[in-house]
Amino acid sequence: MSVVVEKWDRFEIEFAGPAEGNPFTEVKLSAAFRHGDTKIEVSGFYDGEGRYRLRFMPEQEGEWNFATRSSAASLDGIEGSFSCVQSRKGNHGPVRVRDRFHFQYADGKAYFPFGTTCYAWIHQSAELQELTLKTLEASPFNKIRMCVFPKHYDYNHDEPELYPFPGSPGTGFDFTRFDPAYFRHLEKRILDLQALGIECDLIIFHPYDRWGFSDMGQETDERYLRYLVSRLSAFRNLWWSMANEYDLFLRDDGSLKKDTDEWDRLARIVQGQDPHAHLRSIHNCLKLYDHAKSWVTHASIQRVDHYKTAENAAEWRAVYGKPVVIDECAYEGNINHGWGNIPGQEMARRFWEGCVRGGYVGHGETYVHPRDILWWSHGGELHGSSPERIAFLRNIVENAPAPLEPVLKPAASLFDPNWDVALGRAGDGYSLYYFGFCQPAFRVFDLDAKENYRVEIIDTWEMTIRELEGSFSGKFRVELPGKPYIAVRITRVD
Amino acid sequence: MSVVVEKWDRFEIEFAGPAEGNPFTEVKLSAAFRHGDTKIEVSGFYDGEGRYRLRFMPEQEGEWNFATRSSAASLDGIEGSFSCVQSRKGNHGPVRVRDRFHFQYADGKAYFPFGTTCYAWIHQSAELQELTLKTLEASPFNKIRMCVFPKHYDYNHDEPELYPFPGSPGTGFDFTRFDPAYFRHLEKRILDLQALGIECDLIIFHPYDRWGFSDMGQETDERYLRYLVSRLSAFRNLWWSMANEYDLFLRDDGSLKKDTDEWDRLARIVQGQDPHAHLRSIHNCLKLYDHAKSWVTHASIQRVDHYKTAENAAEWRAVYGKPVVIDECAYEGNINHGWGNIPGQEMARRFWEGCVRGGYVGHGETYVHPRDILWWSHGGELHGSSPERIAFLRNIVENAPAPLEPVLKPAASLFDPNWDVALGRAGDGYSLYYFGFCQPAFRVFDLDAKENYRVEIIDTWEMTIRELEGSFSGKFRVELPGKPYIAVRITRVD
Repeated sequence: MSVVVEKWDRFEIEFAGPAEGNPFTEVKLSAAFRHGDTKIEVSGFYDGEGRYRLRFMPEQEGEWNFATRSSAASLDGIEGSFSCVQSRKGNHGPVRVRDRFHFQYADGKAYFPFGTTCYAWIHQSAELQELTLKTLEASPFNKIRMCVFPKHYDYNHDEPELYPFPGSPGTGFDFTRFDPAYFRHLEKRILDLQALGIECDLIIFHPYDRWGFSDMGQETDERYLRYLVSRLSAFRNLWWSMANEYDLFLRDDGSLKKDTDEWDRLARIVQGQDPHAHLRSIHNCLKLYDHAKSWVTHASIQRVDHYKTAENAAEWRAVYGKPVVIDECAYEGNINHGWGNIPGQEMARRFWEGCVRGGYVGHGETYVHPRDILWWSHGGELHGSSPERIAFLRNIVENAPAPLEPVLKPAASLFDPNWDVALGRAGDGYSLYYFGFCQPAFRVFDLDAKENYRVEIIDTWEMTIRELEGSFSGKFRVELPGKPYIAVRITRVD
Repeated sequence: MSVVVEKWDRFEIEFAGPAEGNPFTEVKLSAAFRHGDTKIEVSGFYDGEGRYRLRFMPEQEGEWNFATRSSAASLDGIEGSFSCVQSRKGNHGPVRVRDRFHFQYADGKAYFPFGTTCYAWIHQSAELQELTLKTLEASPFNKIRMCVFPKHYDYNHDEPELYPFPGSPGTGFDFTRFDPAYFRHLEKRILDLQALGIECDLIIFHPYDRWGFSDMGQETDERYLRYLVSRLSAFRNLWWSMANEYDLFLRDDGSLKKDTDEWDRLARIVQGQDPHAHLRSIHNCLKLYDHAKSWVTHASIQRVDHYKTAENAAEWRAVYGKPVVIDECAYEGNINHGWGNIPGQEMARRFWEGCVRGGYVGHGETYVHPRDILWWSHGGELHGSSPERIAFLRNIVENAPAPLEPVLKPAASLFDPNWDVALGRAGDGYSLYYFGFCQPAFRVFDLDAKENYRVEIIDTWEMTIRELEGSFSGKFRVELPGKPYIAVRITRVD
């Protein structure tokens, strides 16, 4: 009998080993996985009660062999094998960078991130977690930003059911051990997301903390990273977000809990430990990280200006030379916090502004709720008007012949009326113009006179697409609705 | 019998003189006006048909004497006098800078510019000009940007009835002479505006030109400036705008018709020639002028970013140390040009964003019209939704106890929810908060616990002001409408 594992699925094997002492710190376990000339080193982890595990995500079909090494004799030199078979429908593998500014699954299928944010949804009641999954299933979102650690902040004062380390807020935590139940719960939720086709953009550290998890010291941070990566890297729908708001890790005396060098060091530990090279980034509050650094696979950006956000996508692409994900462009909602009360129109507009510039934008929602259940942190239900429009946009983006690339205009001038429009192209036969809050009643287009074009007027708020009769060529005038949030899609007719 | 002139009104005297040759270039005329120890040199001008004029705006009450000097014997050594008396109601004198960032009339009355733009309204049909004046009378606008020269641009292809120089587009123009009828018409319109309490922000040069007026050469430019200033500086409701879009004066070969040094030189001619020190500025297209220069009395700004405009007012105040007038923040309308199709909501928002930051914003309108009559250039009627809201704002600003000064916030942080709000103060007992496109459902204010405050919720779009019952003190929560375009006015109750 041979073990069979689907490509990009998880091979997992459990061993019995020493339970005495502190296995988390005292026992080392790793394995080499081999396939032809390929050899991949993988770390195992202690899962409590004398159980040790190895996880591996095969990326090549065929026969794989492994052999363990361990500081514990009972775990050392164990050999085994499994067959990696073709992936089934729905399993496209992990997401990788494509064509410098975009993404695709490992099987080549394009992936366009339309993410949302529920920082602490896995730390809410079981009932609420199930509701969140149900909401996500019906939503347009294919990525979620969420934290490993529980969250302490306005609207977030409940204690979580579990903690990542043994102990409690009253007695303190034993940072030399982990609570495997905590991580098993996290893993279950990652798999729940995987079943829904949702990437988990996992936030490894965050500053909203009353338990000390944001300032555990280098040794504990490193042990935590190695443990986390050993447990999770075999999950294909995983992205590593080193931090939420890396620049807000401040102690009461104003000193930094982790400076930029430390973030780089921690990120390189993740990079070195992860045999499957999941996407890696780090998220800012006030100051963008230098996403040009080699360990960063894509820019993960919170807007730094209240007014101008996703309109910067093309500039950020140029600066970093990487995919730009503006995964926090403010929240649709009406709470007191200035980052959490933009209307659905403005959220949808930011998505469009970013997308036609070849970037990607993330959603979040913070409506006042009678029981303080805000999607942004707790999950639950969506109440806003933007998700429906984001679904509409996602459909357009996914049906374009290629990822959108921004057409950079020369500075607006006396002679160019197009100050108001952002233009994305998907190949030279597909143009998507977006007018944002402007309301032109018409526009003259000047295209190739030797080609014929189909013209469609898209009302991005009403979610209608109206094709103009006939085909167009050369210079032509298009009547527009004269209201905000209009796009024009022009496709070459071959 | 003695001549009596109201303070800040126009003393004008006509002399017969030589009509032969070219009096515009050949005859020099000036006068010294004296009042006690005050002596002011004023240039006269040739008004055609052997008539010469001297104009003067007395700024001190009492007896004034004058004596002419001229290269023509018949105009030389003429003496006279007049009495300057107290100004009547409605005559507050010219507008000056007040408290570094604001304006007031010469009599000390505060002046808050709420301007509009009709570049070429005086070059339209007489009927349309009268309609424009009628519209202005009912409007909230107390300043208008308008050009001396006719305008050539999209929607602007008609020939004007008159030209500033003798000649025609077919035969060419004699740049060594002026057509006094042209300037008399301009003066009539300036007086019409004065009667309506409207400042004329007169654009001396502009680039939208098919007649050659934007590239006449230094000698003609200078003669034109001296002639213009001699004719107009005695009009109290006059501001000098050296150029509209100074940075678009380009020849076909790409060379500059006037560079920055030349603009400075020309501005200093105006400054030196104008005995009444009217306000002076210059207006950009793509690149802001260096408004810190000494001849500039206030910044005159066209927004250089499509998305973020009046939100920069406080930064620009800090950079230039002068009043900031964002007199072109885009146009409410729906034309094809990207600068000319923002909705009324966005125009009104820009006014508020600028005003609460201690700046001033200008209006313009460009709605598609069956006969191509667009307020922006031609005047006529207003069709938009912003003027009514601008009137509402003007009333609020004019009834504040002092001009609004921006409260500069520290960078948005984890602990400050007020990312979304701009705050202006008029003295320490009056605060005006503006939430722009954000829609908070409530906000907690933290004010002096020893004082009592009145709180009013202002819906800037619906134009309602609702005072909350009771008085407030210390830290208190205010329920807000949870929709965009809301302001909160908090006034200390003494």
